[in-house]
Amino acid sequence: MKRTALYPGTFDPITFGHMDVIRRAADLFDRVIVTIAVNPDKHTLFTLSERRKQIARAVQDIPRVEVAECGGLLVDFALKHNAVAIIRGVRAVSDFDYEFQMALTNRKLAETITTVFLMPHERYAYLNSSIVREVARLGGRVDCFVPDFVASALKKKFSGKKS
Amino acid sequence: MKRTALYPGTFDPITFGHMDVIRRAADLFDRVIVTIAVNPDKHTLFTLSERRKQIARAVQDIPRVEVAECGGLLVDFALKHNAVAIIRGVRAVSDFDYEFQMALTNRKLAETITTVFLMPHERYAYLNSSIVREVARLGGRVDCFVPDFVASALKKKFSGKKS
Amino acid sequence: MKRTALYPGTFDPITFGHMDVIRRAADLFDRVIVTIAVNPDKHTLFTLSERRKQIARAVQDIPRVEVAECGGLLVDFALKHNAVAIIRGVRAVSDFDYEFQMALTNRKLAETITTVFLMPHERYAYLNSSIVREVARLGGRVDCFVPDFVASALKKKFSGKKS
Amino acid sequence: MKRTALYPGTFDPITFGHMDVIRRAADLFDRVIVTIAVNPDKHTLFTLSERRKQIARAVQDIPRVEVAECGGLLVDFALKHNAVAIIRGVRAVSDFDYEFQMALTNRKLAETITTVFLMPHERYAYLNSSIVREVARLGGRVDCFVPDFVASALKKKFSGKKS
Amino acid sequence: MKRTALYPGTFDPITFGHMDVIRRAADLFDRVIVTIAVNPDKHTLFTLSERRKQIARAVQDIPRVEVAECGGLLVDFALKHNAVAIIRGVRAVSDFDYEFQMALTNRKLAETITTVFLMPHERYAYLNSSIVREVARLGGRVDCFVPDFVASALKKKFSGKKS
Amino acid sequence: MKRTALYPGTFDPITFGHMDVIRRAADLFDRVIVTIAVNPDKHTLFTLSERRKQIARAVQDIPRVEVAECGGLLVDFALKHNAVAIIRGVRAVSDFDYEFQMALTNRKLAETITTVFLMPHERYAYLNSSIVREVARLGGRVDCFVPDFVASALKKKFSGKKS
Repeated sequence: MKRTALYPGTFDPITFGHMDVIRRAADLFDRVIVTIAVNPDKHTLFTLSERRKQIARAVQDIPRVEVAECGGLLVDFALKHNAVAIIRGVRAVSDFDYEFQMALTNRKLAETITTVFLMPHERYAYLNSSIVREVARLGGRVDCFVPDFVASALKKKFSGKKS
Repeated sequence: MKRTALYPGTFDPITFGHMDVIRRAADLFDRVIVTIAVNPDKHTLFTLSERRKQIARAVQDIPRVEVAECGGLLVDFALKHNAVAIIRGVRAVSDFDYEFQMALTNRKLAETITTVFLMPHERYAYLNSSIVREVARLGGRVDCFVPDFVASALKKKFSGKKS
Repeated sequence: MKRTALYPGTFDPITFGHMDVIRRAADLFDRVIVTIAVNPDKHTLFTLSERRKQIARAVQDIPRVEVAECGGLLVDFALKHNAVAIIRGVRAVSDFDYEFQMALTNRKLAETITTVFLMPHERYAYLNSSIVREVARLGGRVDCFVPDFVASALKKKFSGKKS
Repeated sequence: MKRTALYPGTFDPITFGHMDVIRRAADLFDRVIVTIAVNPDKHTLFTLSERRKQIARAVQDIPRVEVAECGGLLVDFALKHNAVAIIRGVRAVSDFDYEFQMALTNRKLAETITTVFLMPHERYAYLNSSIVREVARLGGRVDCFVPDFVASALKKKFSGKKS
Repeated sequence: MKRTALYPGTFDPITFGHMDVIRRAADLFDRVIVTIAVNPDKHTLFTLSERRKQIARAVQDIPRVEVAECGGLLVDFALKHNAVAIIRGVRAVSDFDYEFQMALTNRKLAETITTVFLMPHERYAYLNSSIVREVARLGGRVDCFVPDFVASALKKKFSGKKS
Repeated sequence: MKRTALYPGTFDPITFGHMDVIRRAADLFDRVIVTIAVNPDKHTLFTLSERRKQIARAVQDIPRVEVAECGGLLVDFALKHNAVAIIRGVRAVSDFDYEFQMALTNRKLAETITTVFLMPHERYAYLNSSIVREVARLGGRVDCFVPDFVASALKKKFSGKKS
């Protein structure tokens, strides 16, 4: 029995915390699809295409991992790809409330898909993409949070924006 | 002694979770006023008039329940209607922090009004209006979250919006 | 319709936090039964009889309040007394998890009884009986936490125990 | 690649919440070992042998599930059985803090083993063995919390103990 | 050894809760710099200049306190001013998760600077600037939350805005 | 102005988490008294004398740190030593609730003493003495949690106890 898991997110941008979760998920499942949730109403710093390329590059050495995007309901996407699990990284209590909410909603929509919570390394506890963007916006170093090529991309995005 | 309680919220739209709380509140008080908090600066999916009608229809079989709207300070509205309690549904920890904050603020503003926390059925734990809107926006079924006529209204709102 | 609510607890001893919750409950219901949960396996500082007298004295000026004890299942006691509600004071998040657990269990056992959470005055936030006992044991003043006659009783209990 | 997961606990007694987690784990892994943590210093209501039999009976229809006991360090047991994952059910925030603590400690002790958090059905949210024991001790019905044969065993344990 | 601490925030507007934290910080450190975090992308009710004046006036009687603004990375500002600590007031659990996140990020960026959490008086528990703005917007009294001159400024901001 | 801070605890045994907090506290204050809370009713693994020696050895290279013990009320001890602060390490949400409770109680007992919360390095997040004792009891390695000489002492305590 081959088992597929989705790892959904916005990945704006992908961080070492995400990569740690992906690595763990790839140990547990036969196929992990990093799934970019596309929401046309939500502004992102990086375009969908940029994020797709960043993720692909960040996970290129992790076996059994693919990248995809999903513009509709996540559970429909999961059913279409025969996924048995949706992976979520949890770092903190406030995360968890929201995650419970999503997990319960998804379970209501598709009983057969189980939400699996993994804990990123404590080194990346509390790390998230919006903090990374904020530090980069203010000119701080982000190379302990994201891969080099993402750090460069962040620097480029914000250069010329500061007075 | 007749006792009145307010149940304030945005109700955009009303869900089975709200209805469960209203039913419980109607067991405890002599009069429950479902109070739509009106905030002109906040965008809602349904208009005030739509929400008022949806609530009225959703609670028509629950005795002792009325619908009203409040554009000012909730505690002033409560004092005007001789309410002794403000009802709040709590589902999760992050809810609770915010709710404590509001309750303490309201108590500072009007000592005589007690905030009463009720817990919706665990079947509706973590259910909220914004999740319902999101699922509906993505074309998912919401009839296990809201009454039929609200599900239809959501479908109508989002039809034509998806590519 | 007369409505009865139970306010269960160990009350070892009763504190200003408990009294604040009782006062609020007495505003909301027609009859409030302060219910001492009796558990022969659990050691308490004050005997059942001492606690009963302390509570009776502490609430003597609050109308509509009675004191009782319950050695069996709380929901059976509630059904026997036609109670519609079980009152719980909540102060903190960790309280709340436990309280949710009890509330859901009680609801499973008796659907008609609603658990009602009230928030004691922030002045008594985080106050509880075991902290009071600990401070008294170490010779600290507890008259800002409990009524005078309870403070004296605590002092008496611990005198002669310290080296 | 065959993947084994442990599901450790005291199971005093096994509840519908545990069984729900086991069922989900069995969908995700090739082999699930329900692992009774044996602690000679900790008093339990049911003996190790009783709990082993109760679990075996409760999971007999779930494929890929075994029962074992572990008196030493859980991660050593996991390494010995080539387990890739330790399953934990999480229901509430206070659970989660403790669970994080254990997960981080276990990770420090054995990097290759990932802790996987699953959420039991909301129907069993907040259900735990100690609540079940308490309800049974007070003569309440527990057949909505545990299998029939466990309910009978609980009744038997507590009969004759009540005055 | 003279020790400097920063107390960063938006202060839109400064509340009694902030002032309580500043007073405590001034007892612990030789110099406390109330640091207005300037974010051109974030809309505030009061201008930077207004907030600076309000803070200066609110803290004029507390010794060892200065006001400054910071448009870049807070840790760079801290290093420039030889600060050993960043002060944060914490009131609630959800606060704390966010605060942990910021503190860990800042520590990654500058190991020598310690984040120090202080708890405002329980009288100001859960009080925050956005609640104050909301109450003021709806015409409620805010003089138990902020100094008189801030209450007047709030009243002025919102007069003419209500229908 | 010389400022003294207490860092109270049971330290059964002292861990790297405690040492990290002590190091940070020693950067912020002129004198840090590691204060062993002595409670004759509470069983500990290590005797008071053992813990005192372990702490003294663990902090010998950190300047401005002393060790003391306190058998009475902590705030009395603080007032006697002119302490301005009580240091507490916080790692997790459930910690925090308890810590808030103690801090508020202490503030009620002595207004002038401020509780200061510090966050140990994320490397030691969720680490605590009871987990360390448990791992040692089961024969696991604890040298990544405590200094070598404490690890040896733990090993010695538990040798001969396991079958």
